[in-house]
Amino acid sequence: MNPDITRERENATFDVGTLTNILDGGPEKTKRRREIESLVFRDPDFEEEDPNFLSRSERYDQAVRKSAQMVLKLREFGIADPEEIYHYKSCVHPDRPSPLDLHLAMFLPTLLNQATPAQMDRFFMPAWNLEIIGTYAQTEMGHGTHLRGLETTATYDPATQEFVMNSPTVSSIKWWPGGLGKSSNHAIVLAQLYSLGNCHGLHAFIVPIRDMITHEPLPGIVVGDIGPKFGFNEVDNGFLKLENVRIPRENMLMKYAKVEPDGTYVKPPSAKLTYGTMVFVRSMIVGESARAIAKSCTIAIRYSSVRHQSEIRPGEPEPQILDFQTQQYKLFPLLAMAYAFTFVGQYMTKIYHRISGDISQGDFSELPELHALSAGLKAFTTWETNSGIEVCRMSCGGHGYSRSSALPDIYVEFTPTCTYEGENTVMMLQTARYLVKSYRQAKAGQQLSGIVSYLNESQDRRLQPQAVAARPTVVDINDLTSLVEIYKLRAAILVEMAAKSIQQELHRRISQEDAWNNSAIDLVRASDAHCHYVVVKVFTDKLGEVGDTAIHSVLSTLALLYAMNGIAKNSGDFLQAGLLSVPQVLQISVRIKELLSKLRPNAVALVDAFDIHDKKLNSVLGRYDGNVYEQMFEWARRSPLNATEVHESFHKYLKPLRSKL
Amino acid sequence: MNPDITRERENATFDVGTLTNILDGGPEKTKRRREIESLVFRDPDFEEEDPNFLSRSERYDQAVRKSAQMVLKLREFGIADPEEIYHYKSCVHPDRPSPLDLHLAMFLPTLLNQATPAQMDRFFMPAWNLEIIGTYAQTEMGHGTHLRGLETTATYDPATQEFVMNSPTVSSIKWWPGGLGKSSNHAIVLAQLYSLGNCHGLHAFIVPIRDMITHEPLPGIVVGDIGPKFGFNEVDNGFLKLENVRIPRENMLMKYAKVEPDGTYVKPPSAKLTYGTMVFVRSMIVGESARAIAKSCTIAIRYSSVRHQSEIRPGEPEPQILDFQTQQYKLFPLLAMAYAFTFVGQYMTKIYHRISGDISQGDFSELPELHALSAGLKAFTTWETNSGIEVCRMSCGGHGYSRSSALPDIYVEFTPTCTYEGENTVMMLQTARYLVKSYRQAKAGQQLSGIVSYLNESQDRRLQPQAVAARPTVVDINDLTSLVEIYKLRAAILVEMAAKSIQQELHRRISQEDAWNNSAIDLVRASDAHCHYVVVKVFTDKLGEVGDTAIHSVLSTLALLYAMNGIAKNSGDFLQAGLLSVPQVLQISVRIKELLSKLRPNAVALVDAFDIHDKKLNSVLGRYDGNVYEQMFEWARRSPLNATEVHESFHKYLKPLRSKL
Repeated sequence: MNPDITRERENATFDVGTLTNILDGGPEKTKRRREIESLVFRDPDFEEEDPNFLSRSERYDQAVRKSAQMVLKLREFGIADPEEIYHYKSCVHPDRPSPLDLHLAMFLPTLLNQATPAQMDRFFMPAWNLEIIGTYAQTEMGHGTHLRGLETTATYDPATQEFVMNSPTVSSIKWWPGGLGKSSNHAIVLAQLYSLGNCHGLHAFIVPIRDMITHEPLPGIVVGDIGPKFGFNEVDNGFLKLENVRIPRENMLMKYAKVEPDGTYVKPPSAKLTYGTMVFVRSMIVGESARAIAKSCTIAIRYSSVRHQSEIRPGEPEPQILDFQTQQYKLFPLLAMAYAFTFVGQYMTKIYHRISGDISQGDFSELPELHALSAGLKAFTTWETNSGIEVCRMSCGGHGYSRSSALPDIYVEFTPTCTYEGENTVMMLQTARYLVKSYRQAKAGQQLSGIVSYLNESQDRRLQPQAVAARPTVVDINDLTSLVEIYKLRAAILVEMAAKSIQQELHRRISQEDAWNNSAIDLVRASDAHCHYVVVKVFTDKLGEVGDTAIHSVLSTLALLYAMNGIAKNSGDFLQAGLLSVPQVLQISVRIKELLSKLRPNAVALVDAFDIHDKKLNSVLGRYDGNVYEQMFEWARRSPLNATEVHESFHKYLKPLRSKL
Repeated sequence: MNPDITRERENATFDVGTLTNILDGGPEKTKRRREIESLVFRDPDFEEEDPNFLSRSERYDQAVRKSAQMVLKLREFGIADPEEIYHYKSCVHPDRPSPLDLHLAMFLPTLLNQATPAQMDRFFMPAWNLEIIGTYAQTEMGHGTHLRGLETTATYDPATQEFVMNSPTVSSIKWWPGGLGKSSNHAIVLAQLYSLGNCHGLHAFIVPIRDMITHEPLPGIVVGDIGPKFGFNEVDNGFLKLENVRIPRENMLMKYAKVEPDGTYVKPPSAKLTYGTMVFVRSMIVGESARAIAKSCTIAIRYSSVRHQSEIRPGEPEPQILDFQTQQYKLFPLLAMAYAFTFVGQYMTKIYHRISGDISQGDFSELPELHALSAGLKAFTTWETNSGIEVCRMSCGGHGYSRSSALPDIYVEFTPTCTYEGENTVMMLQTARYLVKSYRQAKAGQQLSGIVSYLNESQDRRLQPQAVAARPTVVDINDLTSLVEIYKLRAAILVEMAAKSIQQELHRRISQEDAWNNSAIDLVRASDAHCHYVVVKVFTDKLGEVGDTAIHSVLSTLALLYAMNGIAKNSGDFLQAGLLSVPQVLQISVRIKELLSKLRPNAVALVDAFDIHDKKLNSVLGRYDGNVYEQMFEWARRSPLNATEVHESFHKYLKPLRSKL
């Protein structure tokens, strides 16, 4: 054990294990999580070569091998709880997506939700037993977020009772679905349904794409891998071009909408049912954000505690780089954010489960709010995490660029969350739509409830941007409740400003839609402020649940740092709205520096509390024992370029060059 | 040619060719640049397989082949001007670093600068003819920016008149030098010089590391590749462990410092001489920033002009995504920044050449200012570009993640500039040191000249943070000169605040060094504001040189957008200092939206003016002809995973799984 990191742990003021339990949701959850980790990490069948040393084809091969093993073992051990499966999987493929992800997380659930009993009989068990391997083919080369624009067609032919599937243009080629390129033999294809000359919009169809025995593509199917990407190197994201592919009528998923044998179309009872999955996935992504930034902070903070560099006082030994104020300023606000997002993730899961109970009983009343919240928080947390990971990486100096640090991989595997499951800017605008609608309702005299109830208050107080002098200053900057309050007021003001911008545009006699587009910057800003408020509020509320005094104290410091740092970074908003005075903003800068010093002794313990297994972290810089350099040297020597002392290019190019010059 | 992009070009209000000439520095420079591009891009010897489809060893192999070809061709064509060589190289390895970079850009120049005539005779011609291939081994596993901390030792043995080179610890292993892993047979090693029992600090030694014939490592030399990284996949960044390696006394570079045969150490005449190279490299990096963000903007803006998605007005066809205000808000400020950084790059080169003329005549008076400026601007422009590239990438939706977009590669090849040649935070603090020193001089009554002369004024006006009401508002937000003025005042105020923070810390009776560290956040902020001011000023000054009315108009709009966007993002600073009133900040938000609309028709033309050859851009999304989807499909089909229809993993793992479930 590195002596620096040992000393750090000795200096902590709280019990790490207790905090880990809080993060897991209870001691029994911690215990079970660790059991699952042991199951995987002690299992020789899951041993792997470092993917960084493999070609893409080898990486894909290794991932398929482990996925196949995983399916066997999950059944062997009888692990069936979705959360436990999720955790098991995240150890098998340490936070890397895998070729069978869409089969397990989209193909099977879509069958469960949208297949008729007859379809379940035909498809579910073969899929459960991986005879059928499926994917979910929605996105096209030319169409992502805007589903109505999708071009793939499914035209019903009553004569044969078949659908004829087509990709009519280059831009309509299905593009991106995971597992589509090489692994799947079936795909659930989203296509515009045409029957009897009418278009009925998007519906889902089960399309066999490869032969069940030979795995060769079926006639009319052009399928393959879309090529290397930023991350996702284990996954065969694929393309699919359909050329007059005929499938039986019974391959349309018909639990809700139907096409009768004669071609008559029967509408689904409610469109809202599909919202649930979207909300669920986005809520999960909030948790992913928390895990990604927690991992990054673990690596950067542990490394900063063992790395010595430069000097603070001349003549003294080089200090730990964690002693530099600039290093603390990079990392501790992100550490605070990691805790904030963890609690927001827990909060989202909780309300999702509450509301989905209502939904299953036909009560959709809270769905719009949850939909807006999950969209905005998905965008807010992924954007913040995305840039946060890179701050962590760059805080490790040169070594942050080495694949051995794991930070490059954390980044490339995480960054797609900003785009998939709803592009972030689009998500922010969806939240804004809800906020503006709520604002207008409040203005029309309706009493709002739930998270947007602050928009009621804004009507009462007639908030608007104004000079500091005009507003009495009652904010206590050291009081979290007081800070939550000004975050709330900031959100209220920015929602109002966005709504007014739309109004002003409309006065110029342009259409609603153009007015909306011409106010989009303000709308995104309002959503961002709304989400920021929710995060600060959830973190603050969480403190009320923490009984342990030492932990309460350190978490309060983190919450205060998170809130204050957000204010400092957006001080213009708070000054503009007169929510804070200039002296208060200056005080906050000073307080932030004090909070950094206060957190310094607990920094390593706070990342230890995330309890991320070394094998999951897979980082020479972030190792629990702090023995960084030895391991980095050992890792480098295994690099494929070191397989021979002399690379063949010397003989091929460099040596012959001598005679030519 | 895609009709959308054609229409964009027709709508431009200025002549693209004329602007290209301005960016190149004159029509003859444009012409010569294009000649060099033709030389490379039409040369079949430089044809290559897309590196994304190759293993790392194959990438390295291909890069060595092209580098060897390049050396031959440069001599064949008689290209000797450093700028032209640089440009030729950037076409051969399109903006990718290559294995011989350090040989050409560090090993040869270091010999030129620091070798004695006798050493030139022994080493220069063999190195020039690539018999000797060298690298520059400075960074160690445990030591980067802080050179005094380097641990490698060179101990003089008068008995044999040799230096004994050692890597005494794991952390002292040389780590990162490009070309060290596999390509080089010599290294210039930076080591602590010990002679007659005394340490004389860092000096440079020429160490043979591989056999000239067999290329096998020499005795006592442990050398190899440090393994895969984020980017730099063509380069064999290496490690070097020295175990009692003996080199002749004459292998120490002794143009300045010397060790006599008896071990007597002779000091170098001036330490400032080595500053020049550092300043030069950092100035060059400013230009690299401009090129990287210009490329990224070219890709994102062209793609946004051909990509149709979503809807603004219901029922109408999907609009070009460039019509969304949020998309413009992401990209146009970065486009403005690309222009700003281009002009700052030109400015840096100009003053570097002016001052280096003085230096060669022994006049070092302007060196500290240039040193501070290059350090700060290196950090400022690389950080801004780093995050800007990712904004461009994510503005392309899913396709920005495909390696075919080139954006992932632009990012990974660029991001190391934030760390190498001086870690950015350290750079900002170096600039801050100069600023605080200048501030103190001004306060002590000295009259400052040069770029920091504004610190004189700040003394006169006794600037300090204050409420808006206290300062008369005379700023015309639509006047660039007026905006430059408030950027200047912001810098002055933040320098003063940082200096005062140090002062306050000193009052607490702590040391100078701790006071400095406890004010580091403020110091970085002050440097950032200083650099931001310089960039806005240089861009504004540049407008004065532009005669063409149409181009002057569009560049003025860009400059205004750059300045206003910077204010909007940092509005807290301007409000806090009372430099702008709340209504003015609100007005600026409105004006930014107007400027985006105003730039919209010229956006494609403005990226066309960068005149980046399709082969250099190497992006399916950024193609000049806008034919994105066809090319993306064609690219994907070449992906190695598509070499066979059925991947072997199906037979190995997936098919056998069926019988087990």
